[in-house]
Amino acid sequence: MDKPEMHHTLMAARARQKMSWDDLGHAVDRSPVWVASVCYGMNSAPPDIAQKIATALGLEDDALIEALKACPTKTWDGAIPQDPLIYRLYEVVGVYGPTLKDVIQEKFGDGIMSAIDFSMDVERVEDPKGDRVKITMNGKFLPYKSW
Amino acid sequence: MDKPEMHHTLMAARARQKMSWDDLGHAVDRSPVWVASVCYGMNSAPPDIAQKIATALGLEDDALIEALKACPTKTWDGAIPQDPLIYRLYEVVGVYGPTLKDVIQEKFGDGIMSAIDFSMDVERVEDPKGDRVKITMNGKFLPYKSW
Amino acid sequence: MDKPEMHHTLMAARARQKMSWDDLGHAVDRSPVWVASVCYGMNSAPPDIAQKIATALGLEDDALIEALKACPTKTWDGAIPQDPLIYRLYEVVGVYGPTLKDVIQEKFGDGIMSAIDFSMDVERVEDPKGDRVKITMNGKFLPYKSW
Amino acid sequence: MDKPEMHHTLMAARARQKMSWDDLGHAVDRSPVWVASVCYGMNSAPPDIAQKIATALGLEDDALIEALKACPTKTWDGAIPQDPLIYRLYEVVGVYGPTLKDVIQEKFGDGIMSAIDFSMDVERVEDPKGDRVKITMNGKFLPYKSW
Amino acid sequence: MDKPEMHHTLMAARARQKMSWDDLGHAVDRSPVWVASVCYGMNSAPPDIAQKIATALGLEDDALIEALKACPTKTWDGAIPQDPLIYRLYEVVGVYGPTLKDVIQEKFGDGIMSAIDFSMDVERVEDPKGDRVKITMNGKFLPYKSW
Amino acid sequence: MDKPEMHHTLMAARARQKMSWDDLGHAVDRSPVWVASVCYGMNSAPPDIAQKIATALGLEDDALIEALKACPTKTWDGAIPQDPLIYRLYEVVGVYGPTLKDVIQEKFGDGIMSAIDFSMDVERVEDPKGDRVKITMNGKFLPYKSW
Amino acid sequence: MDKPEMHHTLMAARARQKMSWDDLGHAVDRSPVWVASVCYGMNSAPPDIAQKIATALGLEDDALIEALKACPTKTWDGAIPQDPLIYRLYEVVGVYGPTLKDVIQEKFGDGIMSAIDFSMDVERVEDPKGDRVKITMNGKFLPYKSW
Amino acid sequence: MDKPEMHHTLMAARARQKMSWDDLGHAVDRSPVWVASVCYGMNSAPPDIAQKIATALGLEDDALIEALKACPTKTWDGAIPQDPLIYRLYEVVGVYGPTLKDVIQEKFGDGIMSAIDFSMDVERVEDPKGDRVKITMNGKFLPYKSW
Amino acid sequence: MDKPEMHHTLMAARARQKMSWDDLGHAVDRSPVWVASVCYGMNSAPPDIAQKIATALGLEDDALIEALKACPTKTWDGAIPQDPLIYRLYEVVGVYGPTLKDVIQEKFGDGIMSAIDFSMDVERVEDPKGDRVKITMNGKFLPYKSW
Amino acid sequence: MDKPEMHHTLMAARARQKMSWDDLGHAVDRSPVWVASVCYGMNSAPPDIAQKIATALGLEDDALIEALKACPTKTWDGAIPQDPLIYRLYEVVGVYGPTLKDVIQEKFGDGIMSAIDFSMDVERVEDPKGDRVKITMNGKFLPYKSW
Repeated sequence: MDKPEMHHTLMAARARQKMSWDDLGHAVDRSPVWVASVCYGMNSAPPDIAQKIATALGLEDDALIEALKACPTKTWDGAIPQDPLIYRLYEVVGVYGPTLKDVIQEKFGDGIMSAIDFSMDVERVEDPKGDRVKITMNGKFLPYKSW
Repeated sequence: MDKPEMHHTLMAARARQKMSWDDLGHAVDRSPVWVASVCYGMNSAPPDIAQKIATALGLEDDALIEALKACPTKTWDGAIPQDPLIYRLYEVVGVYGPTLKDVIQEKFGDGIMSAIDFSMDVERVEDPKGDRVKITMNGKFLPYKSW
Repeated sequence: MDKPEMHHTLMAARARQKMSWDDLGHAVDRSPVWVASVCYGMNSAPPDIAQKIATALGLEDDALIEALKACPTKTWDGAIPQDPLIYRLYEVVGVYGPTLKDVIQEKFGDGIMSAIDFSMDVERVEDPKGDRVKITMNGKFLPYKSW
Repeated sequence: MDKPEMHHTLMAARARQKMSWDDLGHAVDRSPVWVASVCYGMNSAPPDIAQKIATALGLEDDALIEALKACPTKTWDGAIPQDPLIYRLYEVVGVYGPTLKDVIQEKFGDGIMSAIDFSMDVERVEDPKGDRVKITMNGKFLPYKSW
Repeated sequence: MDKPEMHHTLMAARARQKMSWDDLGHAVDRSPVWVASVCYGMNSAPPDIAQKIATALGLEDDALIEALKACPTKTWDGAIPQDPLIYRLYEVVGVYGPTLKDVIQEKFGDGIMSAIDFSMDVERVEDPKGDRVKITMNGKFLPYKSW
Repeated sequence: MDKPEMHHTLMAARARQKMSWDDLGHAVDRSPVWVASVCYGMNSAPPDIAQKIATALGLEDDALIEALKACPTKTWDGAIPQDPLIYRLYEVVGVYGPTLKDVIQEKFGDGIMSAIDFSMDVERVEDPKGDRVKITMNGKFLPYKSW
Repeated sequence: MDKPEMHHTLMAARARQKMSWDDLGHAVDRSPVWVASVCYGMNSAPPDIAQKIATALGLEDDALIEALKACPTKTWDGAIPQDPLIYRLYEVVGVYGPTLKDVIQEKFGDGIMSAIDFSMDVERVEDPKGDRVKITMNGKFLPYKSW
Repeated sequence: MDKPEMHHTLMAARARQKMSWDDLGHAVDRSPVWVASVCYGMNSAPPDIAQKIATALGLEDDALIEALKACPTKTWDGAIPQDPLIYRLYEVVGVYGPTLKDVIQEKFGDGIMSAIDFSMDVERVEDPKGDRVKITMNGKFLPYKSW
Repeated sequence: MDKPEMHHTLMAARARQKMSWDDLGHAVDRSPVWVASVCYGMNSAPPDIAQKIATALGLEDDALIEALKACPTKTWDGAIPQDPLIYRLYEVVGVYGPTLKDVIQEKFGDGIMSAIDFSMDVERVEDPKGDRVKITMNGKFLPYKSW
Repeated sequence: MDKPEMHHTLMAARARQKMSWDDLGHAVDRSPVWVASVCYGMNSAPPDIAQKIATALGLEDDALIEALKACPTKTWDGAIPQDPLIYRLYEVVGVYGPTLKDVIQEKFGDGIMSAIDFSMDVERVEDPKGDRVKITMNGKFLPYKSW
């Protein structure tokens, strides 16, 4: 079973079970964002979590569990995203990229924020003028070193 | 004075004054990230803040203040960024874009996170295994509506 | 049922029923442009409207109604459109983009016209020298704010 | 004098004179959007209007008037615009392009809306939930014909 | 029946009937180039001509006639054509584009040649040094106007 | 003197002398389109014609004459043209490319129309419904041969 | 039978018959490079040669012979080739393009080498330091002419 | 002195001295194509040849000689060339690339023709039907090996 | 059997046999990286090695062995890779490309490192601060020569 | 002083002093590749090393030392490199990318080789059949983790 087939199987089961990403995150004791990324085929699950995801969705299938554990090839369509929700994030990177580089390197020295030793969360923040989306990214700072 | 000349003038003054973005944010009572984006020419400053930025950096120059207040044309080089610090953010958008879309729309319904009614912060989180960069994005949820 | 299959089903029914977009808009009490965009899979319908669209076209099918309600991934073919009708709109954005930015920001201050809190209509304007197409776009002004 | 130099001269004069696009449109008895597009070098002015624009801005300079009258080469930077205000218009064309094609061709038959025999206006519509931008495009319908 | 299937059906019938584009143009009383473009799915045929094309090729099929009448979505592969015959035309546009713009606008004023109110013909011109291809394009001049 | 400097010199002289392309074509006994392409730096002039162009424009300058005679490097900006007049020609190539290939190869066999052994003319055709632009291209047919 | 199917049929037969391109060239009395290009669907064969190719490969099939005779649409994958053997040729064009233009135009005057009235051969040149590939291209010089 | 300045200096001297590439090749005892590529800044000259080129053109300048000896960075404008002479070579690579790969690998086994251990010549071949350009490329075959 | 089918067959067998790339390299007496590249269809195997690979994986199939021996067309998806592991290598080439060019050409003179007469290895280097990946590339230096 | 000016200053001094990258690496006790990348403006030097580089090259200039210490913006020209030496490295990434991903992830689990916690060396390996270039890359393995 390849990642796209795994994704379709998981999405259908999630709809049948009416499990939200929060529910599924709870069930396997991981962040909903990370669990969703695993189900989208963009991260691999450790064996025990792969098992738990399958169980939570009522899908006890070895091929599916293997697919959850497999190292993904992380690619995406379109160098510039088009869907408005995703484009706005791309726009933030474009508009604020050099600003973030300067602010981060002033705080930490020359280096980057890892996108591998990395986690991310999404929260709904209530607001009388309209609720807000809060995205938190947390990555290890990796300094450049001389050699 | 156009935005690039304004940027160079401000960066040189900041170096002379040895003011960090935190210092400058403090001095004008705004977030360091937003102040940096203004100095990079990617946001416009309201008149009082434009005045305060100029004062804080010892640059009482009307042309500079006009430049700080002007509506910027927000463009960036390269559809795909190359600098590793900025590329990692682009990669996060590519790898996690559809995941974030699904998690956000499950929480809020059909719509997007605004990149205009939006704020962002950067923090240094101490960690014995290596300090971490924490970026928080906070944007109003905008629902699609029928008409 | 995914959005493309939904689209083909709806277009075939519309042809069978000889319902114009105006007719369908009437039947569900929404603008023909918005209804067409829903049928093209580029907007989601609220549950009651999804039901009404299906009824109006004689298609009482749960999978179809689910497809009408699903959040769409809004993507399009070709960064630069080729079909002459669509290209002319792209050309208008290219030729008049900076002009519109200046005129709008002079009227409203620094900010943008939302493409999410947005509606659009098309009218036929009779003219002895040849009838004219009138497209009206109406989007909320979103101001940039400091933080 | 080429179009970019003309543009800079006119923008500086407009700032000195504190004339809005509405003021300038009034002064020369044309739509503010069209006048702005002339000043941005994206349309040519007929001789009498070129003269009036120069007079209104206190710039009685033959080279400038020649530049206003010259046929422009209409090009723009970036196949995909980046500035958020302009990008949102591009996004509208992408998201709604096939929808508009279908709605227009159902109303008019096979053909297009001209971008040459074309006019456009921008209005501010007051709204208690936040004022709105209204853009109206009006182009002659051009039918395809057999030959 | 979509346009590609229509195209294949028509090409096969044309081969069976050994009808050249000249023959088919004659049979339906239209230019061979226009008839070919209809059969390639790049123009729509008025109802009577659609009927005549079908009859001339011995294909009395309602779905085919509907396909001939449908408004086409005019798109093509490759922003830059590769086939040498088509590339040479692209090269002519690149090499002579600004020349043609200048010559046409000197003759007509600011405006363009329409590609919609447009016709085109191809002739074989005998020449002892090698026969020549003569392509004639004929489009309405559309002037830009102020508004 | 390189081709761009030559072009600017010639255009300024042409404006001073109020010579149209037709006038200049007459003066040197060549087609106005070809003469314009030489002045745009996209064709080289034989020595006698280079001399005549210079004389007609009152520019007796050896460096200019050398520039007129030099073999041009024929390049253009933008794989896809943006100026509407030139874009419409590009669109014609895109929309009608495969049609023209089929019509030409049916008439001539496998081969192409040369863009080198090639000439082109522009005429104004009066028409009560609006004058028309007529462009005639004439290129030698080059057959593919086996070897 | 389209060109890709023709290609696969011919390659399979060639493998079964263990005929090299040299053998096949011999059998039909044409250059191996040209015969290979026909079998790759990038050139059309005159009727007698098409027949001979089919016979040489033991494939007496009218559809195949028609496919060999059909005018090909010459397109290729990737504006920049990736396979190292083909990329090296692309690199030669990039590195030596302006050099070749200058050398050829100095020898012949303003014009080009035809890629249509053109032939090409490949030879193996023995060399004690490692055998060498010799590619010979031979194309008619086409002069630009005034008109 | 960088390569572009070196190039301009050499081209001007060559024009003054009326030396063809053949003359210059003779003078330094190397192929005209290679000498031209050195003067275009696309190859480095060994010290003795650099000296001879300078002498032949009457340019005894150490900075020039250093520039001739320097390792070039070989880059070119445009992934797809536009000048017709160079484009035709690109087209040959596109049309015949897979053909050449098959013919060469059948003759030599898996490997490529080197573009580094490589030479090239251009000849004028007289022909009553129009003289021809003959380009010969000669590169070492490099076999892929297992390891 | 084409290369993609060969690849899938080999990967399934490798999983069934639980053979690592090291095991398979051992079994056929070649480097694991080279063997993996053969199984990915990016190198051809000499006959004896093709046979050994098939035997080691329990796949005695002539079509498979032919596929292993066939000359591959080496192409890849995406001019810029997206998978983070592969992108980091691309980034290294971008960041260090001119540095490597200078260091190598200072050591060797004008020329390149061959990617054909080339080998590569991957090792795991234990490190208390986190194990490291060591990639060694070894390619023949190919000097540019005059001709 | 910006990075490009710093680069030119350092390269000129290095030429005057006839210091190789090995010499300069020795003088500052760092790898020649890293020192070269600093001088190319693609890495920042710690203060003591910046001082030593300046001293070694006889350039005691504070602005230069500041430039050596500044965090670089790491960008490069051309998504696909053209210079043959650099292109060959790009080709290696394209041809062997998926192979390396598989071999590394089999050895280490899901994760990547860091391009930040990274070093690289170049050696000349003598070989009677032609000396070889050996490039060694050494990067920390970064595992993906669940969160």
